[in-house]
Amino acid sequence: MNHAASLTHIAAALRSGSQPLLPYIEQMLDQLDAEDGAVQAFVPEPDRRARVLADAQALIDRYPDPASRPLLYGVPVGIKDIFRVDGVPTRAGSAVPPDVLAAPEAACVSILKQQGALVLGKTVTAEFACFQPGPTRNPRNLAHTPGGSSSGSAAAVAAGFCPLAIGTQTIGSITRPAAFCGIVGFKPSYGRIDPAGVIYVAPSLDHVGLFTQDVASMQLAASTLCRDWQPVENPGQPVLGVPDGPYLRQASAEGLAAFERQVERLQAAGFVVKRVSLLHDIEAMNHRHRELMAYEMAQTHQAWFADHAEQYSAATAALIERGQGISRVAAQADANGQRIARQQIEAHMLEHGIDVWISPAAVGAAPEGIESTGDPVMNLPWNHTGQPTITIPIGVAANGLPLGLQCSAAFGQDEHLLAWAAVIEDRFPI
Amino acid sequence: MNHAASLTHIAAALRSGSQPLLPYIEQMLDQLDAEDGAVQAFVPEPDRRARVLADAQALIDRYPDPASRPLLYGVPVGIKDIFRVDGVPTRAGSAVPPDVLAAPEAACVSILKQQGALVLGKTVTAEFACFQPGPTRNPRNLAHTPGGSSSGSAAAVAAGFCPLAIGTQTIGSITRPAAFCGIVGFKPSYGRIDPAGVIYVAPSLDHVGLFTQDVASMQLAASTLCRDWQPVENPGQPVLGVPDGPYLRQASAEGLAAFERQVERLQAAGFVVKRVSLLHDIEAMNHRHRELMAYEMAQTHQAWFADHAEQYSAATAALIERGQGISRVAAQADANGQRIARQQIEAHMLEHGIDVWISPAAVGAAPEGIESTGDPVMNLPWNHTGQPTITIPIGVAANGLPLGLQCSAAFGQDEHLLAWAAVIEDRFPI
Repeated sequence: MNHAASLTHIAAALRSGSQPLLPYIEQMLDQLDAEDGAVQAFVPEPDRRARVLADAQALIDRYPDPASRPLLYGVPVGIKDIFRVDGVPTRAGSAVPPDVLAAPEAACVSILKQQGALVLGKTVTAEFACFQPGPTRNPRNLAHTPGGSSSGSAAAVAAGFCPLAIGTQTIGSITRPAAFCGIVGFKPSYGRIDPAGVIYVAPSLDHVGLFTQDVASMQLAASTLCRDWQPVENPGQPVLGVPDGPYLRQASAEGLAAFERQVERLQAAGFVVKRVSLLHDIEAMNHRHRELMAYEMAQTHQAWFADHAEQYSAATAALIERGQGISRVAAQADANGQRIARQQIEAHMLEHGIDVWISPAAVGAAPEGIESTGDPVMNLPWNHTGQPTITIPIGVAANGLPLGLQCSAAFGQDEHLLAWAAVIEDRFPI
Repeated sequence: MNHAASLTHIAAALRSGSQPLLPYIEQMLDQLDAEDGAVQAFVPEPDRRARVLADAQALIDRYPDPASRPLLYGVPVGIKDIFRVDGVPTRAGSAVPPDVLAAPEAACVSILKQQGALVLGKTVTAEFACFQPGPTRNPRNLAHTPGGSSSGSAAAVAAGFCPLAIGTQTIGSITRPAAFCGIVGFKPSYGRIDPAGVIYVAPSLDHVGLFTQDVASMQLAASTLCRDWQPVENPGQPVLGVPDGPYLRQASAEGLAAFERQVERLQAAGFVVKRVSLLHDIEAMNHRHRELMAYEMAQTHQAWFADHAEQYSAATAALIERGQGISRVAAQADANGQRIARQQIEAHMLEHGIDVWISPAAVGAAPEGIESTGDPVMNLPWNHTGQPTITIPIGVAANGLPLGLQCSAAFGQDEHLLAWAAVIEDRFPI
């Protein structure tokens, strides 16, 4: 697999002109043609080459002067196929006709374009960003799932098809596929990236997130897409917290043992690691989150499902039907529990002086087969509370596939989280 | 949930006439009408009541004398919808038209009928007994999966809709759903029940298996369906083996801790438990098994998939397409590895004097949601080798759902395995 350079390097080379845009884009399109038949990260698009080359030529015409070029000038990006993009149909991994799903372009796609990015294409998503998998395979081992629901976006970056891709997370659809594919995945604080124009799963739980190959690239991408980004210099060394208790024991015994070895290596590298008993109500939180998701999913899909139920997979239909049976009162209680959970976790951070919770990014490495996208249970609490999380590749499992370290900061501490993740990435002896 | 009595009690009462057949069957049909809307264990069948009552009346007319009645006289059974049954369409959880899938009645269904059983109906299966879930819910908690692919058969017995149901297992489709639903699941030695007339997944890996509420009932059911059943009296207390190593560490940390507590309680109850380092090649075995399954699945579905690809779910299509890319040479190597694996495991049993391997029946209890049927990885080795396994309910997890103890004996030791399982069930202080 021909791995593309990281976003920071490519973006700098394209802006300066040291890497001319047209031959680079042609090479990336050639690579996609040659390799994506096996990976299936992107949704097929017959006119892709003509569209992307026309967009590239327009950029060249618009920005002849390198000094005027925007931050992502000429950078090819993958867009999860639940974001609307003008000129490309939105299918959302569904059999529902694209014209039913059509709407104005997603706000963050427009921002990416304003920053000079080229939409390389739509990436494969599980049906409506839930659990019904698409055909995408893990570039690290084609017999394994890339994770989901942002399957194609994670696989596209891991395969080197593009240095940046965007996705969404409602339980674990950024962190898990990033970890399974051995790349960096960032889910900012809830609401930090505008979700307008994205097909919701559950609006109060959905987050727009990003995939890159390294943390510095993530800082660049986040600075273009997150509201009011304030870069942090010299963040210092974070105090790390391990959330001991039943939450951690949801990981596989192998995955948990690998995590504990990672903790030991972080301590050996000089990090302060505090163990705190946390998340003893994990069963209740898991239930609350999934109930709220089903309730809001039923509302999101109310009109579409009424007209097109037969075009939904059984699994997605079952989720909607479960949601239809949940009362507004129950959902309100779930949402209240969600707010209390964030307060409790942040109170523990204050009490123990913890900057970053660390945990396994998934119960283990990517399982074999693509019939399931794997279990998001390790990601759920940090999505439930809306806290920002980043996963960085930190090792390899017995099956040869990557393992990720999931790092979570307090709500709104996105800039610090990425700065701290850069410290861990830099000093952690992988 | 109105739990039916166990098969042994019901079968005896129906044979003797102490329980008259017609009112019993009418009550079971009423219960199904009242409760299966929530569980969805059975495939809907508009004429079910008339068909079953006619079959019952025919039995009554045929066997006026209790002394002549066969073992399963009047017992309602659930049949996984990949077994052909005369007069009921076979849908296999698929959108492929039933007439494409039609074939003569499955041999074991005919045996059940000869033994006096009444086909209560077809039970929901994951699509073609693979991974694409159906709508069935876990009767122990409707928000959770019942497991799969024999989802409906396990749920039907757990819900008390019938005291016996049949299913199949290619990786873990008997043991896992039985454990998730808190009932007994038995997968006999490979080939011990005739699979003729069942839609194959992978003929060299598929097993017909059974669900009941207790071990004594399983002994009765197995005696009617397994070739040449020789009941074992006074089997003695089995020496139990724990297969230490990376296989066990695939379980969740919580699931493994629960298993270790079960081991301690078995020892406290007087069982000899030996720990043996085993299955260090579990990654290779997992890969071999899934590769062989995909290869044979592609052959099983060659003609159907050629004509009806668009009616397959993406997940099942991907499995078939993976199989199409696997060479005969690779599949042959996998099959050779399979034979060697059985020899190695049985050599360890001889060397250490182990009668029954014990292990967790799944990585944990049934997960919430019905979008996935859960992970079969704890079941794979015993299906790979064709050894008989039985799971018995042995505890409850933090989420309130049941946990199973998976017991595996040497190939062909089916009668002993069930006799030993009865000893464990009887003496284990749950």
